[in-house]
Amino acid sequence: NHAGALALAARERGIGCFVVMPLNSAQPKIEAVRSYGAEITFCEPNAPARESTLKMLQERTGATFIPPYDAVNTILGQGTALLELIEQAPEPLAAVIAPVGGGGLLAGTAIAADGTNVRVFGAEPAGAADCAQGLADGRRIEHVNAETVADGLRTPVGKLNFPIIQERVEGVIVVSDEEIVQAMKLMWERLKLVVEPSGAAAFAAIRSKAFQELDIKGPVGVIVSGGNVDLSKPLPWI
Amino acid sequence: NHAGALALAARERGIGCFVVMPLNSAQPKIEAVRSYGAEITFCEPNAPARESTLKMLQERTGATFIPPYDAVNTILGQGTALLELIEQAPEPLAAVIAPVGGGGLLAGTAIAADGTNVRVFGAEPAGAADCAQGLADGRRIEHVNAETVADGLRTPVGKLNFPIIQERVEGVIVVSDEEIVQAMKLMWERLKLVVEPSGAAAFAAIRSKAFQELDIKGPVGVIVSGGNVDLSKPLPWI
Repeated sequence: NHAGALALAARERGIGCFVVMPLNSAQPKIEAVRSYGAEITFCEPNAPARESTLKMLQERTGATFIPPYDAVNTILGQGTALLELIEQAPEPLAAVIAPVGGGGLLAGTAIAADGTNVRVFGAEPAGAADCAQGLADGRRIEHVNAETVADGLRTPVGKLNFPIIQERVEGVIVVSDEEIVQAMKLMWERLKLVVEPSGAAAFAAIRSKAFQELDIKGPVGVIVSGGNVDLSKPLPWI
Repeated sequence: NHAGALALAARERGIGCFVVMPLNSAQPKIEAVRSYGAEITFCEPNAPARESTLKMLQERTGATFIPPYDAVNTILGQGTALLELIEQAPEPLAAVIAPVGGGGLLAGTAIAADGTNVRVFGAEPAGAADCAQGLADGRRIEHVNAETVADGLRTPVGKLNFPIIQERVEGVIVVSDEEIVQAMKLMWERLKLVVEPSGAAAFAAIRSKAFQELDIKGPVGVIVSGGNVDLSKPLPWI
């Protein structure tokens, strides 16, 4: 999603965009990034390969590195989704909930909520619940053996993001893969939105007993991110 | 779509809603109507059965019949989609295109465009192109052996609607099922919208050579109606 957004933003401003992606990326993500005009360089799906490929690419192109989540400008940029939501909502929000993987979106959302009365929650898949666990333990978990259908949320929460979340987020709701897939199906059927499992996690969380028990009075904003689904494969509820 | 919209509107106003549906209706349509709180009465899938079931139901409930397309209030109601679109569009529309089956949406759109500079076009599947054919012949075609993936557009254009379309619509673009399915897939992938084939017909039409050759200067509004897809079955492009 980060790569697709950057590629589109770069094209609209007429500047070049170079993307490093792991070799095993899903085909629709590759096609989306390419269709927005970015140049893709593939690397082995591990951190050292990603970093050396990035370095090589920067040396060749002189491009500026824009990290996907663990960087101040990225966090602030991702937080603007809540600013837009507040502006567009017909009445004041009582709360907002955003998915948490690397944590940029959730940290940004929490910063954007600063000075408003909007309570902030996160939603995390049970199979990669390092953020919820880290909050319980009082320290960031650096590695996670992620096993969840929500592939966009497998990353452990970032260094910059964790303390922001710790300070500003009221709680992180953990949802099972089954809850995520059911929420995703309901969003497709009733909201007519093509969302990927990661994009349905926050909606799954507000349907959970844990969230219902918070008994929040008033509208709850749900941040839905992203919609990369390989439509040539069977849908996850089949 | 008509049944679902009525059921939802009735529920929001706290009034009863009774829907006659053919026995062979798609499961997601049945579930949507039911989930919005309407009572469904099933009938054999033909016009006489539909009419006798409707009559029986009205005698029992005293409900008012709201026809799906060939009635003044329905036409005017469906036209409000364009009014909303004009209000919400960031710049003035040069044209608008709507799908045509029974013709209520297209006739309503054309009436709503009255007094604006918005040019109005229709989009019809080749396998049920009675409206385009009727316009060419100068008279309404009353029966059609519809064979198209766009099941919402199989109905022949209505008596009231045809003369409105004849007078106010600049042209009806005919699209193949293949063009419809490709447009539908593109809408799912890029717009992240769950639309059914009927809902993708107008988008397919603006991508066609016939429409491109009109060389319209300025934004084109596309009316997208509906999104009933049986998500338990393989998608039409698979």
